[in-house]
Amino acid sequence: MLAAVEDRDKTEENVSEKIHRLQSNSSQLMVDDEQLQLAAAYVSDAQYNRNIQFETSPQAIRFYKLYNHWSTQGITYFFILVDLFLALFEDPAVYLLPVWVTSVVEFICLLMFTLRLFHFSKITPTKVFWRDAKNICVIVSILLTLMDMIVYLTLRETGYFAVRWSRVLRPLFCVNFTESRQLRRAFRNIRNTLPEITYVFVLFMFSVAVFSLMALKLFAKRKLSTVEGALYFSNYLDIFFDLYVLVTTANSPDVMMPAYEVSWAYSIFFVIFIIVNTYVFMSLFLAVVYNDYKKHLKNEVRKLVYMKHRKMIEAFNLLKITYGTEFIVPDSRWRQLVKLVAPEIPSSQRELLWRVSDDEQKGFVGRESFIRLADLLNIQVVQMKERTHPLEKCMPNMYNCTVSQFIQRIVKHQGFRYTYDVIIVINAIFIGGDETNPLISKAEWVFLTLYLIEILLKLFVYEPRAFFAKSQFWNWFDSLIIVAALMGTIVNAALKSSGGYSSQQVLDIVFILRVLRLIRIIDSFQRFRVLLNTLVNLIPTMLTYAGLVVVVYYIFAIIGMEAFKGRIQFYGANSSDPAAKYCGNPALKGSQFAALRYCRNNFNNIVSAFILLIELTVVNQWHVLAAGFVKVTHLTARIFFVIFHIMVVIILINIFIAFVLEAFFVEHSLARSAVETAVEKKIQELGMGDCVDYPAGNLVEVMETNENDLGNTNDTDLKSKLRFKIASIRYKTVDALLQHMFEEELNPEDEIPTFEEIDNLSPDDYVPKQPTFDSIA
Amino acid sequence: MLAAVEDRDKTEENVSEKIHRLQSNSSQLMVDDEQLQLAAAYVSDAQYNRNIQFETSPQAIRFYKLYNHWSTQGITYFFILVDLFLALFEDPAVYLLPVWVTSVVEFICLLMFTLRLFHFSKITPTKVFWRDAKNICVIVSILLTLMDMIVYLTLRETGYFAVRWSRVLRPLFCVNFTESRQLRRAFRNIRNTLPEITYVFVLFMFSVAVFSLMALKLFAKRKLSTVEGALYFSNYLDIFFDLYVLVTTANSPDVMMPAYEVSWAYSIFFVIFIIVNTYVFMSLFLAVVYNDYKKHLKNEVRKLVYMKHRKMIEAFNLLKITYGTEFIVPDSRWRQLVKLVAPEIPSSQRELLWRVSDDEQKGFVGRESFIRLADLLNIQVVQMKERTHPLEKCMPNMYNCTVSQFIQRIVKHQGFRYTYDVIIVINAIFIGGDETNPLISKAEWVFLTLYLIEILLKLFVYEPRAFFAKSQFWNWFDSLIIVAALMGTIVNAALKSSGGYSSQQVLDIVFILRVLRLIRIIDSFQRFRVLLNTLVNLIPTMLTYAGLVVVVYYIFAIIGMEAFKGRIQFYGANSSDPAAKYCGNPALKGSQFAALRYCRNNFNNIVSAFILLIELTVVNQWHVLAAGFVKVTHLTARIFFVIFHIMVVIILINIFIAFVLEAFFVEHSLARSAVETAVEKKIQELGMGDCVDYPAGNLVEVMETNENDLGNTNDTDLKSKLRFKIASIRYKTVDALLQHMFEEELNPEDEIPTFEEIDNLSPDDYVPKQPTFDSIA
Repeated sequence: MLAAVEDRDKTEENVSEKIHRLQSNSSQLMVDDEQLQLAAAYVSDAQYNRNIQFETSPQAIRFYKLYNHWSTQGITYFFILVDLFLALFEDPAVYLLPVWVTSVVEFICLLMFTLRLFHFSKITPTKVFWRDAKNICVIVSILLTLMDMIVYLTLRETGYFAVRWSRVLRPLFCVNFTESRQLRRAFRNIRNTLPEITYVFVLFMFSVAVFSLMALKLFAKRKLSTVEGALYFSNYLDIFFDLYVLVTTANSPDVMMPAYEVSWAYSIFFVIFIIVNTYVFMSLFLAVVYNDYKKHLKNEVRKLVYMKHRKMIEAFNLLKITYGTEFIVPDSRWRQLVKLVAPEIPSSQRELLWRVSDDEQKGFVGRESFIRLADLLNIQVVQMKERTHPLEKCMPNMYNCTVSQFIQRIVKHQGFRYTYDVIIVINAIFIGGDETNPLISKAEWVFLTLYLIEILLKLFVYEPRAFFAKSQFWNWFDSLIIVAALMGTIVNAALKSSGGYSSQQVLDIVFILRVLRLIRIIDSFQRFRVLLNTLVNLIPTMLTYAGLVVVVYYIFAIIGMEAFKGRIQFYGANSSDPAAKYCGNPALKGSQFAALRYCRNNFNNIVSAFILLIELTVVNQWHVLAAGFVKVTHLTARIFFVIFHIMVVIILINIFIAFVLEAFFVEHSLARSAVETAVEKKIQELGMGDCVDYPAGNLVEVMETNENDLGNTNDTDLKSKLRFKIASIRYKTVDALLQHMFEEELNPEDEIPTFEEIDNLSPDDYVPKQPTFDSIA
Repeated sequence: MLAAVEDRDKTEENVSEKIHRLQSNSSQLMVDDEQLQLAAAYVSDAQYNRNIQFETSPQAIRFYKLYNHWSTQGITYFFILVDLFLALFEDPAVYLLPVWVTSVVEFICLLMFTLRLFHFSKITPTKVFWRDAKNICVIVSILLTLMDMIVYLTLRETGYFAVRWSRVLRPLFCVNFTESRQLRRAFRNIRNTLPEITYVFVLFMFSVAVFSLMALKLFAKRKLSTVEGALYFSNYLDIFFDLYVLVTTANSPDVMMPAYEVSWAYSIFFVIFIIVNTYVFMSLFLAVVYNDYKKHLKNEVRKLVYMKHRKMIEAFNLLKITYGTEFIVPDSRWRQLVKLVAPEIPSSQRELLWRVSDDEQKGFVGRESFIRLADLLNIQVVQMKERTHPLEKCMPNMYNCTVSQFIQRIVKHQGFRYTYDVIIVINAIFIGGDETNPLISKAEWVFLTLYLIEILLKLFVYEPRAFFAKSQFWNWFDSLIIVAALMGTIVNAALKSSGGYSSQQVLDIVFILRVLRLIRIIDSFQRFRVLLNTLVNLIPTMLTYAGLVVVVYYIFAIIGMEAFKGRIQFYGANSSDPAAKYCGNPALKGSQFAALRYCRNNFNNIVSAFILLIELTVVNQWHVLAAGFVKVTHLTARIFFVIFHIMVVIILINIFIAFVLEAFFVEHSLARSAVETAVEKKIQELGMGDCVDYPAGNLVEVMETNENDLGNTNDTDLKSKLRFKIASIRYKTVDALLQHMFEEELNPEDEIPTFEEIDNLSPDDYVPKQPTFDSIA
């Protein structure tokens, strides 16, 4: 940087002259289209953090553009979903379809996957393609599935028993296609975290084993009995299982009571057990998972950042021209590039980005500025257009008359909001009442009308496009809820008046919509709005974890269905069938499972299986659920349930908590990233900020005619016509949040490694800062 | 620092001369005793992080020394414990004592507390004393307790009903005496964290309320029934409570089953409820608590560090003399001071500390070096003394003969350890067997003998004082367990042979000891040893939290005992009394509480109360326990149990987890503090490190004669005779760990504020580093 400044000082006199020459000699500046396309592909990859190495031939780049197009990506996602949802229609099914139908659909899915992979192989160098584990994984999965389908269909036709075991492979498609970067990264992190967890887990198991041995020595000889009348703590393996369940707290305090009844001193054993295993070891698990996960995540993000820089450098090298002793990219090329990469950005905003990049108005950008482009493109700049209300356009006299002005003043007044807050509270009381009361059902119409009037008034006062802007979450929420409730209520009333028949489903939805309306009151309290925003911002990251959980659930559900289908039957809520008392399986007679009416918790179709797995994730009573299946299938069930518990509760949930914690801290501590700050500074510098008061008027027309692509508007033009602001701090992608988390800890002066070096980075390469002696004294 | 170096360069020629003059002119260097005592008080405060402002008169300092003496502190702790344990002997009591006995004891306790406070008032300036909330708190508590005792005794004598409500104040003594710094800090942090938590809590409660309203609308009209036959989700308040319990997962999946049986679609409601409230909100609680707690803790530690520096500066100002343009403390004064502050440090080690302080061997220390003394004194330097084995001393011929040498070689061999690992595993199998089998009971004697032989052999080979050094945790553990098991087994055998009578208690203890022995196998695996060390290092910090929990439990136990004593009765494990079936309270007939035999979970004495509160902390089945008391005492119980849940589970447990996480990260990431590194460097520099091979020989005698206080040993002396190493990274105090956590983030160049300024620091004064633009590009 310093060198560049000195350089500039020396050549100050002939800069403007040189720029003039550069701009006039535009034919020399025109980069050939192929190179531009390639550079655009690099920049686009950097912007969206795609970690793909592609071939640089023009054809491959065209293919690559198609590969990243939303339509081909959408088709892939669609077929992945179809493949996953097939489980609804295969035995054990929710709605059973003939085998040939599901087989054909699955075959089509596999075909699409193969096509997608083939497409990918055309883009990436052959060596890279075959070295990539995820491609191999997809190919193997496709082959295995095909094999399994053939074997299954043959066996079925000849009347043999057959298992469609390859269905567990389906989630792998979901993980291994290039689109699911976040999901794959999450899985890779879990895999990397496993060794460290294993040590803690072994120590934890050893601790439970030692306690179990103590319990055996203390209680076995006393021949106590449990509430169910069974012998208490009589067998080492049972004790071990019971104490493992106690770690999850699911059988506390029942497991302690028989001993506690004999002497309070025995409770000390259980208290120490819980402190050591539940509190200390489980916290330690969280700590280890958190620590390791962060370490590996940091490495992943480091790779991402390096990859981004590397791709930007490649793009820079394609577009650069020599200028004195430096390499630069002139503004014309930069504009061509941005237009190609992000055609959706209006010219005015592109101009703003250019101003941020070319901070000193030199007419070109250097390497560092160019690299920053990837981050710049990711910043959501909202261009604030002052639009005229459509009513004012159509009938300006009426819209500006005294009555109208008066209404506008009222609606914009604080009191208007407070009035509606009060109405919502009153509404809440009415909702709580009995809806068969005619007064209350009439009141509902009154409330609906009041809410409708509110929305209409607001639409009268505020410009509709501004009112329904993307960032206006609450306006969207309100309007959707009210319109849906209105429609529901009308449909319900129509059904009722037509035949006295009222659909329960419609009513249920109407009721829920009515209650949801109450949520709006949160918006009235600044403090809660902030909290809610934090929560909303966490949603995208949480969705990655939802994906992770669904993948794991799906695998367990398929295995569970194959192992336990039909073993436990549900006969309906009020069945008079005597078998309903023991879930249709005599082994469950007198069991707690049957007594608690858990029959519907079974693996008889994928929906039931998912609900059961969610119950197991919540942990409580999981030992009762497990015991039910253990009675039916013995060891299989016990192994299945314990492995599920370890995988989901000990590992996945802890990672989830770790991620929420980390994301929350980032949300809380860093309001804006450095790049965002730079853009904002520039906006203020150019006097186009939000806070500047500008005359309300018909700017819209000027704006709209200006929406062409001439680009080179001059300074005063820009200043007079546009207002920008940075959108609320919301991360477009999970990647952005992740990078924001760790970017500051990475050393920006590091040499950017090559593609191959990036691939082989390990977390141990990264040395954290050591405390220095001076920092103390 | 730079200025100092230049200064030194200039005066290079006359430094040695000057030092000579300083040392010869020792009468001028002798500081008067009063000043030295005052300086020592400051340094001692800084070393132990005492946050006390004391008067500087010689008498006050003598008083202050007495105040900090272990004996007066011990007496205070003793009477606090007596006061707390009184609850065992007061109605409802474990062993009921006459009221006059407990009253007299309590009166004595109060007297001691008053004395202690009076003592403190003599030390601290009157203005500071009366401005300190904790002194006021103690005075008010003492007065209220006295009043309550008088009223209670009077009312009792006249036959009226009276409640000893002031017993809830007892834990305040535990918190508010100056000794319980950590406990008080933890409470202060919780209090500071509360406002932020409150917002999240209100939002969370609002969320539960909205879901409850939905549930009411969805399910009330369906008239479903629960497993117990009660009407399902019929009343808003009951729904709210049930859903609050569902957040704690205690009634999952039971609360869902009736709705789920009707339609699987209803389970969506519960799944969304659990995701939002249990997973997201509870993680958010942890995040908010963690974040806020860290913020306030940082402020506390900042105060601590400032206070330490301030006190060291005060001490420096007392001892300094002018030397050129600087103020310095000459080595003679420094040595006098250290001798006074830490008389237990041997002269050789003091010499090492001096070398670290006076890094450049100038014969004096400057201000910065002097301030570091407080940290230096806290470092545990282990002086490695090569001692001769006592047997070698007594009979050197025998000890060094071939057989003895052979034994020594065997014991030191790896195979010896492996052999015993195998023995432990075999032992584990035998322990698992039935001990009434004569083979197994005989085998036990064999194992005991084997273990004894192991210890004796090790004592023969290794020097006993080295074997039982403080840091040799496993040797202590082994020996204690084996000796105790031996004694227990002998007692048991004696009892058995004397009258065929075998005490169950003795046997229980012997069994536990036998099993505990197995733990030693962990020590054989490096990886587990590291993990275990981490856990052991966390214990001191966890104990602070144990103190916190005991205080909160005590208050709830006292309130619970007053509210619920005698309402639920326990009739013994196998009582034939018909009332035992419903815990002696007809209201509990047919309740789940009675059916699950929970009668012993009551508030009939403080031990039962504590166990019940622990069960509630574990959360599972807490709604059943609560329901039992609700049946008996209605609203009181519900309020009591919910408040307990909020206080302990939502706040305390989250803070505990936050602290374990933070402590684990510190343990994991920072092996040594900067000061420790400096000491270690100096040790290496002086060639006194652990890794240097030195001839084994009779160094002990030299060492021991050298253990005088002459101090001024020269370099070669030091080098030839001593070996040091830094003790394993274990924090002497919780404070040290805390400071280690945050010290690096504090700016060391900050101006150290005065005592008054330190008192008024707030967390918002502390501005975290902002990301800069350059760190990205």
